[in-house]
Amino acid sequence: MNEVLNSNFDAVYPRIENAINNAAFIAIDAEMSGIHTERDLKNSLFDTLNDRYTAWKRNIQQFVIVQFGITTFYRVPSKNAYKADSFTFYLFPRSIPLKNRQLSWEVEAMDFLYKHGFDFNKFLVGGISYIDEIDEKLMLDHITQGDIEDCLSLLSYDEEENFKECKSKVCEWISNKSENAPLKLETITPMVQYVLHKDLRNNYNDIWTTSDCKSVYVMKISGNAQDDLSKKNNLEDVLLDFYLGFSKVFKLLSSSKKMIIGHNILLDLMFMHQQFYKPLPDSYKEFKSNIHTLFPQIYDTKFLSFELRKLYSKDEVNWKINSLNILYEYFTTQGRIITYNSPEIIFNEEFSHKKNYHSAGWDSYFCGYIFVKMAHIFCVKKFGTGLEERIASHTELMSSVKDFINSINITRGNEIYMKLDGEDPVLSRPEWLHVKLKSPSLDIKQLMMKFSSYGSMDVMPFARRRVLVAVSNHNTASEILRQFKSSKELQVTRYNRIKHATSMTILLWSGAVLSGGILAWMLKNISKTYINQCIS
Amino acid sequence: MNEVLNSNFDAVYPRIENAINNAAFIAIDAEMSGIHTERDLKNSLFDTLNDRYTAWKRNIQQFVIVQFGITTFYRVPSKNAYKADSFTFYLFPRSIPLKNRQLSWEVEAMDFLYKHGFDFNKFLVGGISYIDEIDEKLMLDHITQGDIEDCLSLLSYDEEENFKECKSKVCEWISNKSENAPLKLETITPMVQYVLHKDLRNNYNDIWTTSDCKSVYVMKISGNAQDDLSKKNNLEDVLLDFYLGFSKVFKLLSSSKKMIIGHNILLDLMFMHQQFYKPLPDSYKEFKSNIHTLFPQIYDTKFLSFELRKLYSKDEVNWKINSLNILYEYFTTQGRIITYNSPEIIFNEEFSHKKNYHSAGWDSYFCGYIFVKMAHIFCVKKFGTGLEERIASHTELMSSVKDFINSINITRGNEIYMKLDGEDPVLSRPEWLHVKLKSPSLDIKQLMMKFSSYGSMDVMPFARRRVLVAVSNHNTASEILRQFKSSKELQVTRYNRIKHATSMTILLWSGAVLSGGILAWMLKNISKTYINQCIS
Repeated sequence: MNEVLNSNFDAVYPRIENAINNAAFIAIDAEMSGIHTERDLKNSLFDTLNDRYTAWKRNIQQFVIVQFGITTFYRVPSKNAYKADSFTFYLFPRSIPLKNRQLSWEVEAMDFLYKHGFDFNKFLVGGISYIDEIDEKLMLDHITQGDIEDCLSLLSYDEEENFKECKSKVCEWISNKSENAPLKLETITPMVQYVLHKDLRNNYNDIWTTSDCKSVYVMKISGNAQDDLSKKNNLEDVLLDFYLGFSKVFKLLSSSKKMIIGHNILLDLMFMHQQFYKPLPDSYKEFKSNIHTLFPQIYDTKFLSFELRKLYSKDEVNWKINSLNILYEYFTTQGRIITYNSPEIIFNEEFSHKKNYHSAGWDSYFCGYIFVKMAHIFCVKKFGTGLEERIASHTELMSSVKDFINSINITRGNEIYMKLDGEDPVLSRPEWLHVKLKSPSLDIKQLMMKFSSYGSMDVMPFARRRVLVAVSNHNTASEILRQFKSSKELQVTRYNRIKHATSMTILLWSGAVLSGGILAWMLKNISKTYINQCIS
Repeated sequence: MNEVLNSNFDAVYPRIENAINNAAFIAIDAEMSGIHTERDLKNSLFDTLNDRYTAWKRNIQQFVIVQFGITTFYRVPSKNAYKADSFTFYLFPRSIPLKNRQLSWEVEAMDFLYKHGFDFNKFLVGGISYIDEIDEKLMLDHITQGDIEDCLSLLSYDEEENFKECKSKVCEWISNKSENAPLKLETITPMVQYVLHKDLRNNYNDIWTTSDCKSVYVMKISGNAQDDLSKKNNLEDVLLDFYLGFSKVFKLLSSSKKMIIGHNILLDLMFMHQQFYKPLPDSYKEFKSNIHTLFPQIYDTKFLSFELRKLYSKDEVNWKINSLNILYEYFTTQGRIITYNSPEIIFNEEFSHKKNYHSAGWDSYFCGYIFVKMAHIFCVKKFGTGLEERIASHTELMSSVKDFINSINITRGNEIYMKLDGEDPVLSRPEWLHVKLKSPSLDIKQLMMKFSSYGSMDVMPFARRRVLVAVSNHNTASEILRQFKSSKELQVTRYNRIKHATSMTILLWSGAVLSGGILAWMLKNISKTYINQCIS
């Protein structure tokens, strides 16, 4: 693992650039500071994709990605192998002029990340800056259009003190005619460096300034040399570059137009949009379109794993949960049988090999790994078992998953997925049951307990002592109808919109479907937030 | 310094209790995760105390105290000395059932704390829990009134898994009749411990359960012994105790009714109210009354230092800023002369002596230190210089500052302070000047620059090319009037409400005074947030 921090970002950047440009595909993963603003946010079988987008947008907007993982996979020529280069970036919302930046944490997310090796001191000291495109434009305008006075007004108190101190050193140094050695000035931020360069070059014709990470150097030069030197580097670019930080990598990822692989990637994409591109739009369609423009080829390994599952019996593929770590464990143990002769993944030997789930870099590696293994399986299905004796080309592998491109997994989506480059699949509504609670002692919680063994479901209040139950498929519905046919406590029938509706219930119904608020309120006492489910 | 974390809280608690109960007075300090929600929040000379309270309440409500410092000062009998016991508590909003806790940071506050030695990993792992009285009641009701099923429904996914695993171990252990050694069960949270105790004792008559920090122990006992054992400890109290954590210390502080000393203590009090007591009320009066009930005797050393200043010429007392560190440095160096024969402060020798500004424990120590030194000076003024030859009693010292009790410093308050136990002093309105900008090239920013050398001021738009300027005192006003008497760029007169008002301006005026919004908007380009000013 290549850990990228403020201190080595500039040095590692060319290598990242190179890895992205040469990659056959790129896997990503993000760790967030939180995802739930509302305690009772729950994915429901009643949700439409639009509902889901709106709810998540509302819930995540105050949180940020604190660690980003990128693993590039390079196809090794004439070998049945990909070479993986992994990078873990710690990201920190560095102070920028014009804005009072804040950072919200969900306490459970802090506990979770800490448990998985996240170092909060490293995050704070070493985290790389980023800004979205809106702030980038704002800063650029301010820096390029403003005069030196405007820039001075952007300095914090500490920065201003630092600037003044440096200036008075320069005055003294210049007045000492016999002093010819360059003067070194300690600077506390890139903004102070920028203002110092600008101010000194403006005010003195016979000096030149250069800088490194922490210092500005001032040297005496002869009369006209400044004009020539000025052309060679652009102070504005240097300053902006610092604030951009990781956003430069995001731009690289996007402009490369390479295949992007993620596991359960929807939240990652939403966070990337709001953090490096621009605030999430209100319109779900616009979100899809923006993401598709930024990353035209996306694969979601969670979605792929559901598709793969369909090819096998439960005995053949025996993972119960398709979380990233379970899938990786599977493909590195029993799964080796069904991925016989699949490409080998060679982890770059220069990097540390200590694997760690829920570290963003490693998760991106695991994600790319299982992508290759699953692609191989689809490839065998497509081109026949002969592949077990020859090497499948990268093109063959990719053509085998082509059908699943830009299809994004939706948690508890009831066979629904998000199609980024077109219309979402038509919502095959879940089976809805109309349940009348006959026994006065029966409440909704007890009802859900009674039904829970038949499969996943959601309940929505409908009318007095009547509820609608959404179950994920036809079998579950039939089974419940059969079991409770002669129940004295409750009456279950298939829901019929016309037969069951009244003016009252239609009103309630449309409100509940749109907002989900009533549902959330009702589920309050039985819902459990389990952050891992959503972060993984 | 005695650093108190989760791991040693229970062990250190009796010592804290003892120190508080024996203290002559107690100094406190808090470090916060942030204080500005609005970038442009600015204390203005136009503010009333009510305005100030409302603005701060709005700005701080999402932030928390992350470190709390307490130093108790014990008067050493028959010695001219106080003994100081200092404690630094790291506080962390631990996950509690029924609530999704969040934590917001101002990025500048994180930088600031880190720079002053705050350890974020320690904060996360070692931070002590706390809950306010509202949540305490909510939890108590839920725990005591709910049955075991209710408690089970409060468990997170991880906790539930832990509980199930423990239970199955117990079943196996019980069925093994020949096994008589106690069974040790690893538990991940106090909530799992509680539910396990409760569930096992309910379901089995012939076992007993005990626990330590991380484990529950189950042992086989004879038939009726359980009844006797049950009376001896209350599981509910143990559980609640964990969640209460530092709130127990807050309760101790309050119930002791001892003198509380803080430096610029208003924000500390507001945070303490919202974090350990209950959310801040909308009513400023209610806030004052609540604080006075919780802590009937408060001294603000910043307020005292302003009062002390009045006793001396600028040469005698030469600190420019009365921040905590400057005052402490002063009283430990030059200030020794004017505090001759003042009580010695003996720092508890068992604690680490490595001083650190902006660590809450140390800041509370510095605060108590300067309190004693200032009290001595007031005492000499009151009882005469004879005190330089004898020891002033604690009672004499305290009687000398009695006039300043419950008077709280207001930053940029223009001679105004907050009186917690009575009516605030009548607002001696600052001098207001009416300024007409005659030169078309002159803008408000330039105007403020022109006036800035005469003293502190705030500007408010009044009508087209007319502004009101609030200056802190009469001298400043006179000086400005004199200097700009024959200016061609602007016309300055004393503001006269009747002479200058028009229907338009009255409207604008009342709006601006009430909201401060226009002012904030206008000051945007010249304001600078400097977190240290407010946190210190």
